[in-house]
Amino acid sequence: MEAQGGAIWGVGGLVPHPPPLPRIFVNRSLALGKVRCFGFDMDYTLAAYKSPAYEALAFELLLERLVCIGYPHEILRYTYDPAFPTRGLVFDALYGNLLKVDAHGNVLLGTHGFTFLSEAEIWSFYPSKFIQRDNLQRFHILNTLFNLPETYLYACLVDFFSGCSRYTNCDTGYQHGNLFMSFRSLFQDVTEAMDNVHHSGCLKEKTLEDLEKYVEKDIAPIPPQARIPILLGKMKEVGKVFLATNSSYNYTDAIMTYLFGVGEAEASARPWRSYFDLIVVDTHKPRFFAEGTVLRQVNTDSGKLRVGTYTGPHQHCAVYSGGSSDVVCELLGVRGKDILYIGDHVFGDILKSKKQQGWRTCLVVPELSWELDIWAREKERMAELKRLDMHLADLYQHMDGSGCGLQVINSTKREIRRVTRELDMCYSRMGSLFRCGFRQTLFSSQLTRYADLYTATCLNFLHYPLSSLFRAAPELVGPREPPRHP
Amino acid sequence: MEAQGGAIWGVGGLVPHPPPLPRIFVNRSLALGKVRCFGFDMDYTLAAYKSPAYEALAFELLLERLVCIGYPHEILRYTYDPAFPTRGLVFDALYGNLLKVDAHGNVLLGTHGFTFLSEAEIWSFYPSKFIQRDNLQRFHILNTLFNLPETYLYACLVDFFSGCSRYTNCDTGYQHGNLFMSFRSLFQDVTEAMDNVHHSGCLKEKTLEDLEKYVEKDIAPIPPQARIPILLGKMKEVGKVFLATNSSYNYTDAIMTYLFGVGEAEASARPWRSYFDLIVVDTHKPRFFAEGTVLRQVNTDSGKLRVGTYTGPHQHCAVYSGGSSDVVCELLGVRGKDILYIGDHVFGDILKSKKQQGWRTCLVVPELSWELDIWAREKERMAELKRLDMHLADLYQHMDGSGCGLQVINSTKREIRRVTRELDMCYSRMGSLFRCGFRQTLFSSQLTRYADLYTATCLNFLHYPLSSLFRAAPELVGPREPPRHP
Amino acid sequence: MEAQGGAIWGVGGLVPHPPPLPRIFVNRSLALGKVRCFGFDMDYTLAAYKSPAYEALAFELLLERLVCIGYPHEILRYTYDPAFPTRGLVFDALYGNLLKVDAHGNVLLGTHGFTFLSEAEIWSFYPSKFIQRDNLQRFHILNTLFNLPETYLYACLVDFFSGCSRYTNCDTGYQHGNLFMSFRSLFQDVTEAMDNVHHSGCLKEKTLEDLEKYVEKDIAPIPPQARIPILLGKMKEVGKVFLATNSSYNYTDAIMTYLFGVGEAEASARPWRSYFDLIVVDTHKPRFFAEGTVLRQVNTDSGKLRVGTYTGPHQHCAVYSGGSSDVVCELLGVRGKDILYIGDHVFGDILKSKKQQGWRTCLVVPELSWELDIWAREKERMAELKRLDMHLADLYQHMDGSGCGLQVINSTKREIRRVTRELDMCYSRMGSLFRCGFRQTLFSSQLTRYADLYTATCLNFLHYPLSSLFRAAPELVGPREPPRHP
Amino acid sequence: MEAQGGAIWGVGGLVPHPPPLPRIFVNRSLALGKVRCFGFDMDYTLAAYKSPAYEALAFELLLERLVCIGYPHEILRYTYDPAFPTRGLVFDALYGNLLKVDAHGNVLLGTHGFTFLSEAEIWSFYPSKFIQRDNLQRFHILNTLFNLPETYLYACLVDFFSGCSRYTNCDTGYQHGNLFMSFRSLFQDVTEAMDNVHHSGCLKEKTLEDLEKYVEKDIAPIPPQARIPILLGKMKEVGKVFLATNSSYNYTDAIMTYLFGVGEAEASARPWRSYFDLIVVDTHKPRFFAEGTVLRQVNTDSGKLRVGTYTGPHQHCAVYSGGSSDVVCELLGVRGKDILYIGDHVFGDILKSKKQQGWRTCLVVPELSWELDIWAREKERMAELKRLDMHLADLYQHMDGSGCGLQVINSTKREIRRVTRELDMCYSRMGSLFRCGFRQTLFSSQLTRYADLYTATCLNFLHYPLSSLFRAAPELVGPREPPRHP
Repeated sequence: MEAQGGAIWGVGGLVPHPPPLPRIFVNRSLALGKVRCFGFDMDYTLAAYKSPAYEALAFELLLERLVCIGYPHEILRYTYDPAFPTRGLVFDALYGNLLKVDAHGNVLLGTHGFTFLSEAEIWSFYPSKFIQRDNLQRFHILNTLFNLPETYLYACLVDFFSGCSRYTNCDTGYQHGNLFMSFRSLFQDVTEAMDNVHHSGCLKEKTLEDLEKYVEKDIAPIPPQARIPILLGKMKEVGKVFLATNSSYNYTDAIMTYLFGVGEAEASARPWRSYFDLIVVDTHKPRFFAEGTVLRQVNTDSGKLRVGTYTGPHQHCAVYSGGSSDVVCELLGVRGKDILYIGDHVFGDILKSKKQQGWRTCLVVPELSWELDIWAREKERMAELKRLDMHLADLYQHMDGSGCGLQVINSTKREIRRVTRELDMCYSRMGSLFRCGFRQTLFSSQLTRYADLYTATCLNFLHYPLSSLFRAAPELVGPREPPRHP
Repeated sequence: MEAQGGAIWGVGGLVPHPPPLPRIFVNRSLALGKVRCFGFDMDYTLAAYKSPAYEALAFELLLERLVCIGYPHEILRYTYDPAFPTRGLVFDALYGNLLKVDAHGNVLLGTHGFTFLSEAEIWSFYPSKFIQRDNLQRFHILNTLFNLPETYLYACLVDFFSGCSRYTNCDTGYQHGNLFMSFRSLFQDVTEAMDNVHHSGCLKEKTLEDLEKYVEKDIAPIPPQARIPILLGKMKEVGKVFLATNSSYNYTDAIMTYLFGVGEAEASARPWRSYFDLIVVDTHKPRFFAEGTVLRQVNTDSGKLRVGTYTGPHQHCAVYSGGSSDVVCELLGVRGKDILYIGDHVFGDILKSKKQQGWRTCLVVPELSWELDIWAREKERMAELKRLDMHLADLYQHMDGSGCGLQVINSTKREIRRVTRELDMCYSRMGSLFRCGFRQTLFSSQLTRYADLYTATCLNFLHYPLSSLFRAAPELVGPREPPRHP
Repeated sequence: MEAQGGAIWGVGGLVPHPPPLPRIFVNRSLALGKVRCFGFDMDYTLAAYKSPAYEALAFELLLERLVCIGYPHEILRYTYDPAFPTRGLVFDALYGNLLKVDAHGNVLLGTHGFTFLSEAEIWSFYPSKFIQRDNLQRFHILNTLFNLPETYLYACLVDFFSGCSRYTNCDTGYQHGNLFMSFRSLFQDVTEAMDNVHHSGCLKEKTLEDLEKYVEKDIAPIPPQARIPILLGKMKEVGKVFLATNSSYNYTDAIMTYLFGVGEAEASARPWRSYFDLIVVDTHKPRFFAEGTVLRQVNTDSGKLRVGTYTGPHQHCAVYSGGSSDVVCELLGVRGKDILYIGDHVFGDILKSKKQQGWRTCLVVPELSWELDIWAREKERMAELKRLDMHLADLYQHMDGSGCGLQVINSTKREIRRVTRELDMCYSRMGSLFRCGFRQTLFSSQLTRYADLYTATCLNFLHYPLSSLFRAAPELVGPREPPRHP
Repeated sequence: MEAQGGAIWGVGGLVPHPPPLPRIFVNRSLALGKVRCFGFDMDYTLAAYKSPAYEALAFELLLERLVCIGYPHEILRYTYDPAFPTRGLVFDALYGNLLKVDAHGNVLLGTHGFTFLSEAEIWSFYPSKFIQRDNLQRFHILNTLFNLPETYLYACLVDFFSGCSRYTNCDTGYQHGNLFMSFRSLFQDVTEAMDNVHHSGCLKEKTLEDLEKYVEKDIAPIPPQARIPILLGKMKEVGKVFLATNSSYNYTDAIMTYLFGVGEAEASARPWRSYFDLIVVDTHKPRFFAEGTVLRQVNTDSGKLRVGTYTGPHQHCAVYSGGSSDVVCELLGVRGKDILYIGDHVFGDILKSKKQQGWRTCLVVPELSWELDIWAREKERMAELKRLDMHLADLYQHMDGSGCGLQVINSTKREIRRVTRELDMCYSRMGSLFRCGFRQTLFSSQLTRYADLYTATCLNFLHYPLSSLFRAAPELVGPREPPRHP
């Protein structure tokens, strides 16, 4: 049977007991059977970090760093609240607001600290309720899962300084004696703190210290067996498999060893590296998909690089550092179109591999698992929204210019806003990752454009035979039979 | 009632006798009643050029120009054939091919001259059947109606030189004695000829010499009355109306006078300029939507400019030259979101006004009128294609790896290609503007992204009350109830 | 003997009767005997336009054009005055001033219209008396001989509008009713008028109508013989000779035929093209020295281009259009360092050929002939300036902080300014092309950096055997024996 | 009295016993009395690092780092040899050569490892003996004193790999099994090692551990007194003084405390900060001279930054981080032209402050002290070179085309090369920083263009009254009395 009225749907695989829900969604048809090569990102793709423990850790380290460069100790009292942020928000470094926008830059929702902006405020901050997204000096898209603690941090800092009596609120920041803290400088400080937390190694160190706490390990029950090696093993039977991660070798090795092990005993059973035809670390994505960097071999004993560029034939199980997507194709003897690349980063993994190299792409979107539940649960509210929307259309059609008509229209709009907000709140305070009422977010439109498939976890591929055809609803854009009018 | 399964549909207005077909299509909901300002492009928007007479004229002038710069006289024997080109093709200046591509650069169809490229040829020219569209030095998108004669010209020239015994065919061009004519130089020559034909004024001159032949004039029957002034008159009752054209004042004046007149007598009844609150010529779109140029006043008696920049309050009926979209908003006292801009140029009119200024947009796509007819007529073939597509999916699901399954799959694919090609040929040799089988073209994806509405002619607004709500099907991207598997 | 105290000097050739003055100046040593190839620009290099007749013609055409686009007829009363402008000035499109600056952007002199700016005004317009030359949106260098009429035009327009009672003077332009004419728009208008005068062909047409009036023809007396063919003939004996001009073939042919003919009879004696190994027209310098354009052959009968790129061996006397400096080297079989290129355009001819290709360069600077005369005549004033300068240094050394010392210093400075201004006025109202007092102009510093040789006319090479070594004074920059203190 | 034949000279101050040599050289006249503000860089300007101890330390740390990332241990046997490198060389990342070039990119000298390239090799590597300096991907200018160890390192690495039997020499690098080490990757490795040594803090740490060994401390004898505070004290009497360093506060504080102290006791006499009106650390030059960064206050107790941007009035003795040259002018109330900025970095200190801000500049060039000595010592050789050069010019003038003349010319040229090489070797293996024979280096030409003054150490200002006029020899470029011919 077929999807009704939608561009996006999935086709369940032929597993013995059909799962309650299909799990891989399709934007553009893709025949798994034709994929000759499966590529994986590691962080948030093979290695799912536990939410909110991991975000809370990063948030804490960010706060510590900020205090270290001079921020007041009082900010340490904030703790990460997973119920607030949504991925894909935009931080406006001029006015300090967090914005939810659609694909064209129209503002759907905004907050200043934890205070939601009223319609009037949005119109006054953003003429036309519109932002020019190209202004990268001003608007910063917080698109990755790593950005979640940062997103919440912006809200906390604005909340703190706005409420702190020592600081005077100004349009573009705060005055404190003869210091002016602009939202722009706050943005710079947070960005530098992010760099510090990620590059100093402190986040990685803490993660490795307690892998159980921070990294998801999916174990199939009988016999207890990590499911990632099962998936990779199946894929390797039908094609090639590679890993391309921006992480260093040592970190990658620690994480992967953990993921592939079950108990103490089996850990050494089959080394994780043997599941891959090619392992590339330090990839510098998105540069990896363009000019790339020098390809070096990693000495897997010492974790150190060998000098010089690797030029020989591909050696099984060898680990490389750097390189580029072109080099991967060459070493594995595959073409861009033969590759299905599975990653979590819209820009670095999916947009670039698709746009610059023509790879097939699958985006991992962990939020899907709970957003699907809420969707199912809130069907009634969704239907109500639809009714209101159609009612509004009718009102417009029959509008006779009388003030009475206008009144009903306005009250219907208020209803729509109310239900929309209620729906939003089911997800988090900033609403769904994909939608605001009926309107699609920027994140959602990017997902639609660049990801051929998307799913909550790459393990969902286990539910489909590797010969499946993921079939998109036909794209019937353009002239199609239009609806008759009543 | 509601659209089934599709993202794009229209809502008919409350005309007494419902028209056979709704005529305005909707990508994003828009309440006409909230539009405070209607903007128009002139060429191909208010002034519909007659097809194929106008394209044939431009094609002839291009040929003459090429002969003039040294091309052999034999090319003059080609005449414009409207049955060949489709808008939105890409010319590959390296290999001389015309390509139909999808939004991501995947090649859907290709020709070299009038010869269609085989699957094998496409794979060999374009690794992964994919082009990097960002390589603007190599790939040239022929997106506007003005590009149609140019598109056909590329096919003719490649056809001529490939077949001419004096020239030797090479990979990237033709050798003739010690001259090498690369496809790149051919591209340069055609581009320069296009510039010449448009900027020397010869095309405009010929057009003005026989307006009946080249410009559509839509007359309502009783009493005979041009329909454009009716439309503008209605719009002016509910909001402001402006014209923003890249043409010069003198050409604009001649075309508009023709369009607004009925017989000799009435021509002078009400001057066309009185229908607009603001008229801006020489707009230099797309620059108009960014930094713009100096705004000057046009002396409507002499057609000459007044020196200096206009800074005063807006004068009714005054004509300006240059300026920018910001200046238009300022002079008319409207915000970007209040404007519905109706134009025919995806990049210059729609993408830029939407992306940089947040305007609401309506794209005029004249091809829609016949594409809709074909669509209606070929319903059966479309259904067949759908059946084949679903059958293929089934085959994949049940594939058991036996050679037999593969054989059926391959023959089904051949069938799909055959039906797709048959469908294509109903439109023109290069197929539909919007689709290739079930796959959406680059043009179609840009239309979806940037145009809020689209329609075959701006006159279609006459079928809707100006209080209508154009309502898009709810965008249900993301988690939605997935189809049950059988 | 040797030059004293200077970096720039020339070495006279072994002509039978030593000329009164050497005529070629040397920035970097160059052995003519090692030059294997001589390249020439045409305009202002081989073809010297008669000054001020040619500038006056261009000035007149510019005025006509401006009136045509709406400027008041009163500007037509201005006539070109060669005694005002100097080459190398900078027009400030913000404040409408003409500036003379040094290599680092320090302002040496400024006028607003014909009124010289006072020291105080310069300091107030330009903080630090300094302009950031990189701001190309604001500062426009008028470096070529073609810019002279434009330079004078700026002064005239500012003079006119500043004095015209209908316009109110503002900081950045003029107000006239509700029109504001900014200096920036004035700059745009003049730039567009320049483009029009040069590209519409009207300047070329008028020039060809009266070659005697506008083009210098240098005839040696007995027997009467044009000296350019003599020079090229000698050069062709020892190496290759090429012409690379941005002009079209038809114009080039007309000018060169005139230059090479003597009387009616001999005109046809030996065609001008036979003096060159290679002739390239439409060169698009400075692009010619970088990526260049497609090289085509010119049909010298029709003046039209042959289509396709020329790829064969070099044909003697053939004329080409387009191409690049790399193509020239290839066709002639020479390397960059073997070429001496003689041109008049600091940026387009000399800087680019030197910096991007390593060619040896000779800049033709017609102003040299009269600047040398003035220099010789004004020796006494120069010496006075030197005395004052040294006196000032002494005063500073012995300054004791008493007001008296300061008074003497200030009066000495005033004296220096007076003598500097007197010296300037010997050249033109804007002073010498090379200096302002002791300070070097931007033009002069560019000449020093990029031209190996420079001279008033390329015919000066006739005074030197083609085996000459032009020897620069040794560059003793850095640690050198310092002067003993008295 | 006056300089003879040169553009650059100095004027001795009025010290009681005239020093044997003037010490500050002048490119453009500058009246010290008009300077209202003195600015200093710290590293290599106020803090002179001891050569070669400091370079040797950095070299050693670089080697260790390279071994750490996989380079063979054998490279550790190299030790820094100050007799080899000269500042201002260019590393060619394509062919691995070190080049000495002139201002236009003409190659003066080249080595591959420690082997000098022959004339023939230079011509074959560099067509026209010329490099396009704009190709920054390929050519890297090693312009600062910090680059000296790096320069020597390139020679060592090329020497090592070229001689090591495990590696095969290729045109653009070395092959080792299936690893190819390109010169480009070698360049990347060294660049990253440089970054590591400077940013990890290891170089700073080692320096601070033994300040006596690495940092020059200039003590005036009776009473023993550091001379830097004397200089700054004098300057502060007549104007304002500021420090602008890219170093961090903690490092700056340690170095300056050392420089300003004499014995243990006096160290605390007067804090170094009191000698400055403004102290700015973390300046990010050259960005400092353009858009700059956020200005923050440094807590001098903790060395930490205060958050927010400083906006109040300038506080005496306060230390700031970041900012820009504009902010410095504002805080101190001075204009660009009032500032004399003394630094050691041609690009970061001098070119940028001059070109973007119009500051007066003094470049500290420690090499001057010994280059001056050599210059004085080698007068005779210099004279010989001059004689040969003039003899060559004579030979060219009288050349009669006979083979005999040519022979003498060639032997004279050989002589010139021999003497030039002998002169070079007096400085170091790569010759003088300023010259190669009579030809000026790129470094020297940049010094001439951008530094108003230059000197071996800023302490030389102690020899001049702060009212001195540094007077450049008049710039007599352009028309000047030419030499009479014999």
